[in-house]
Order: sequence, then structure tokens, then C-alpha cells
Amino acid sequence: MAEPVNGWEARGKPPTLFKRFEFARYAETRAFLDALAELAEQVGTHPQNINFGSTYANITLEAGNGESLTETEYALARRIDGLIVSGG
Amino acid sequence: MAEPVNGWEARGKPPTLFKRFEFARYAETRAFLDALAELAEQVGTHPQNINFGSTYANITLEAGNGESLTETEYALARRIDGLIVSGG
Repeated sequence: MAEPVNGWEARGKPPTLFKRFEFARYAETRAFLDALAELAEQVGTHPQNINFGSTYANITLEAGNGESLTETEYALARRIDGLIVSGG
Repeated sequence: MAEPVNGWEARGKPPTLFKRFEFARYAETRAFLDALAELAEQVGTHPQNINFGSTYANITLEAGNGESLTETEYALARRIDGLIVSGG
């Protein structure tokens, strides 16, 4: 069974993994979204949904197998968290 | 009074202007979002909310004066439409 990831919330059926990120300025939000788009291309999976405004981005990851969240989604969630740490 | 714009829907209170754009592939969605971000920087106004997945982007523009939609929002809506036309 996949382990929980800091601040990510399992939701719904089919299951998804959700987290809200907040930023001080639009430039930071934009940098995060650009880094996320690059990460998505690297891993070949785009988040099911990204909902953003000037200073926030809500990310929803879907279960790749359509049935349950696995280490694949949790690993991606951690890499998304890592964009914040490494990107400043 | 501001004129309506093709496919944009006035909503809510405070008023917003909403439109859904659909794309054949993620690459097209991404190109649209990148062009939209550049446009937002040019005009100095970011849409209130952008909600996107691999093949769609839902755009919400808010009334800049907080009270009613004006030509400012409709002009921005038309420029966003133009991103599709010019960006292919």
C-alpha cells in the first residue's frame, strides 16, 4: 500500500490525490507551473487537473490504473513537492 | 455597455467572464497556456482563474473594477480568442 505524502489528500472515486500550493507572487506561481510542465513531460504523465490563479495552484493527480492510488502517484506527488524546494 | 464576445459567458457576482477551450492534444493546450501567460504579462492582468487538464483550459476573467464587466474584460477575452487563431 502506498504511503501518504505530506499535505496531499486522497479524494474521490476514481481516486485522486490533491494538494493546494500557495505563492507570494504570480511570478512564483508561474515558475512552479513551468517547472511542473517540464516534470510532466519528463515522466510522460500530466496531472488530471491544475487549477490556478495569481498566487495559488491546486493540483489533482489521478490514479494511473483508474482504480487505486499507487506508489506511481505518490512518487509524482513527492517530485512536485520537490519543485518547490529546489525552485525556491 | 460592453458587447458580448463569441463563446464567453458572463457569470456571477462579482461578475466574471468564462470560456472553455478544448484542444486535440496536450501540446496544443500547453502552447495556448504559454501564449496566455505572455499575454497576461503584456497587459499586466492575470485571469482570475485558469483550470486546465491535458486537452482543455477553462478561463475565468474577473471584472477589474470589482463591480461590472467592461470593455477592458471583453477586449482581453477577444485577445485570448486571438491566441487560438494566430497560434493555430
